[in-house]
Amino acid sequence: MPGGYEVLRPTTSDMRQAVIAQKGDVAALFEALRAGSSIGEGVTRDTYGSGEQFAHGLIAQRAAAMGLETHRDHAANLFMTLAGKNRGAPRLMTGSHLDSVANGGNFDGAAGVIAGLVAIKALQDLGVQPTCDITTIAIRAEESVWFQVSYIGSRSAFGMLPPGALEARRVDTGRTLAEHMTDCGASVDAVRRGEASLQARSIKAFVELHIEQSPQLIDAGFPIGIGTGVPGNFRYPVVKILGEYAHVGLARRFRRDAVVAASEFAMGLDEIWRANDAAGRPMAFTIGRFHTDAKEHALTKVAGELSLSLDVRAYAAAHLADLEAQVFRLAGEIESKRGVRFEFGTRASAEVAPSHPGLLAKLTDRAEALGIAALPLASPASHDTATFTIAGVPSAMLFVRNANGSHNPREAMEIDDFLDGASVLTNWLAAEAMSPAASPSH
Amino acid sequence: MPGGYEVLRPTTSDMRQAVIAQKGDVAALFEALRAGSSIGEGVTRDTYGSGEQFAHGLIAQRAAAMGLETHRDHAANLFMTLAGKNRGAPRLMTGSHLDSVANGGNFDGAAGVIAGLVAIKALQDLGVQPTCDITTIAIRAEESVWFQVSYIGSRSAFGMLPPGALEARRVDTGRTLAEHMTDCGASVDAVRRGEASLQARSIKAFVELHIEQSPQLIDAGFPIGIGTGVPGNFRYPVVKILGEYAHVGLARRFRRDAVVAASEFAMGLDEIWRANDAAGRPMAFTIGRFHTDAKEHALTKVAGELSLSLDVRAYAAAHLADLEAQVFRLAGEIESKRGVRFEFGTRASAEVAPSHPGLLAKLTDRAEALGIAALPLASPASHDTATFTIAGVPSAMLFVRNANGSHNPREAMEIDDFLDGASVLTNWLAAEAMSPAASPSH
Repeated sequence: MPGGYEVLRPTTSDMRQAVIAQKGDVAALFEALRAGSSIGEGVTRDTYGSGEQFAHGLIAQRAAAMGLETHRDHAANLFMTLAGKNRGAPRLMTGSHLDSVANGGNFDGAAGVIAGLVAIKALQDLGVQPTCDITTIAIRAEESVWFQVSYIGSRSAFGMLPPGALEARRVDTGRTLAEHMTDCGASVDAVRRGEASLQARSIKAFVELHIEQSPQLIDAGFPIGIGTGVPGNFRYPVVKILGEYAHVGLARRFRRDAVVAASEFAMGLDEIWRANDAAGRPMAFTIGRFHTDAKEHALTKVAGELSLSLDVRAYAAAHLADLEAQVFRLAGEIESKRGVRFEFGTRASAEVAPSHPGLLAKLTDRAEALGIAALPLASPASHDTATFTIAGVPSAMLFVRNANGSHNPREAMEIDDFLDGASVLTNWLAAEAMSPAASPSH
Repeated sequence: MPGGYEVLRPTTSDMRQAVIAQKGDVAALFEALRAGSSIGEGVTRDTYGSGEQFAHGLIAQRAAAMGLETHRDHAANLFMTLAGKNRGAPRLMTGSHLDSVANGGNFDGAAGVIAGLVAIKALQDLGVQPTCDITTIAIRAEESVWFQVSYIGSRSAFGMLPPGALEARRVDTGRTLAEHMTDCGASVDAVRRGEASLQARSIKAFVELHIEQSPQLIDAGFPIGIGTGVPGNFRYPVVKILGEYAHVGLARRFRRDAVVAASEFAMGLDEIWRANDAAGRPMAFTIGRFHTDAKEHALTKVAGELSLSLDVRAYAAAHLADLEAQVFRLAGEIESKRGVRFEFGTRASAEVAPSHPGLLAKLTDRAEALGIAALPLASPASHDTATFTIAGVPSAMLFVRNANGSHNPREAMEIDDFLDGASVLTNWLAAEAMSPAASPSH
């Protein structure tokens, strides 16, 4: 405890100092994490594999050194808890995931776990015993690239993982999620039975800090953002556009060219997005896969088939429904105009997860009190926070600016920006945990 | 000789009858050809392989039965000649190729060879001894899908095959063109030395009959067309559009999306084509291959790279040059607008081959004399005729209507339409070979 003076109700400034004082430690912890999971240029912390295991071990060690209670649930999520005065009261939670994509960046996920430890350490250093438990969770398996299943760790914690997901195979090893979970100490049977290590009624609120995955904060000149919601989406992983293969000599008016039809589709979607951007209605569409058939296509052959993947995301259910109607209308127009047929195939979707308005107001208030400029920001990407929101936990996010996107080795989070985010988190936790009232005024 | 009357100068009507009289024979010959090369639904007469060999054998047998002189040149092209009174005079030539794509149609190529035999048979039946030799040639290796080299047989005949082409490997067998040619009795060394079995100065004119590969004649209601020229082209077999891979959460204004950029490129080319069509300037562009990178692309990843093939064809060198400038201008605009980079890679091209105006006039005249409606038609596809034109032989084409394009088993040539085309060919040969003048008036 710095100075040993009375710190039962530390000031905003005290808390900021207690966070900033950890700068060297934080940088060293990030570096240790990178060093232990670096393969080539980036880091690889494979979901329920050796990379993620290493990170969980390192973080658990740190939590133990801080004197926190640690335990792993049936999905091997790691809970790190600072005990509160009333152990039975709904607890405050923060945290994020520790896995990464292959050859990814060091901060995506890990920053939120380390921020939770930094906040707890600041409270410890200031001698605060919170009124309720404060838990930082290191969530498993957020990166859906490995098993093509989203939110495995957080949904397992709430008993909400669809049982079929356990049979999903990791794209690199070909082994099932169940096998990989077992390797990492999870109780697959409990996951299968839908047991829950988290219940909404016993969580007062959840805040996840995460690096931003788009350079909007950089662009707007804000070190941090306050997440207004996680988008919902609809996805058509395999859309086929079927035209007719033809000789290169076929005249334009007779062609049923899948390449031109698909291009008109992509351009139509881009125009819908442009119009939504102009109208201030946040959304995104992504065609990540887009290809003619390698077994058939040729330099001198009009393409008769093109396959593409479609991901469309937005922040309100009604907006998503409207966008999906527009997608089908566009496809119908192209079918008539170009003599092709769209097969949309299997549909997948995720609910929208708006942040809790009261919680947003509190985080905004804490940033203002600290003099930290914070931009309200719709999360462009999906996050475990959505699982908490959908389960009924008041939830929100903090974003730290990052110039170079995520899922790549060039992530560029500045530690000072990170400490700004951690300061807001610390102040919010303190404000919640030093007040017996469920909703302290701000 | 039907009727045994004086037929030294048979009438147009006599010649038409002599062609129509062969209808049953022609149908049987096409059927024999199909039966011997049919694999699955379509026919496969693989270039310098067993399918093409079978067809050459069958046609050579027929020519021998007709009493024609037959010989194979150093590239194993088959020459079938009706001797003329003056064996040293420049000869008249007709014919086409006998190979096909895999699972292709029975008429693409073969119709032109059989038409040549039908025309000679009609002259024989009418007792015409031509003033000069008349040769029907069965050309090798026109279908460039097998070795990715165009006009192998006809260019070899003129001593114009680039030597490197002999090392090209057949896409299915992996063996070289030289090996395949040797198997079929060709003298590869002679081909390599650029020896010629054909010289422009010893060919008075060349006319190739071919099925149409676009339904323009069907659409316009003409049984046959008179080809005004074979297009030239420029090709970029591998164009790369390089953007930046990014997380699906990246906002629109920050994206450098290769899929959207490529789509804008394809739509821009389609618009250029539409405008050229509207202005009556025939051309075609084809993007046959169009794909994101299978090793990198994913549902939730903005695509950073797309690869495509580009084939652009037109009928005048200046038009092609203008189109190529437009292609580059379009790419430049998209580079600026979308933050991507185009790499055009290797360029290939073929000269335009306009038909000989005097020969066009003669064919038109012969069709009129026969009362057969013939539409002037720019050939949408490439043909061996281009080799003859570029070598300096007055050349032109006759097209027979076909609803379903070529290079597929659904080609739909009617024998009556074919006999219309063969009648024009016969009448032209007779008009040329019964007149001692080099350029008979019409």
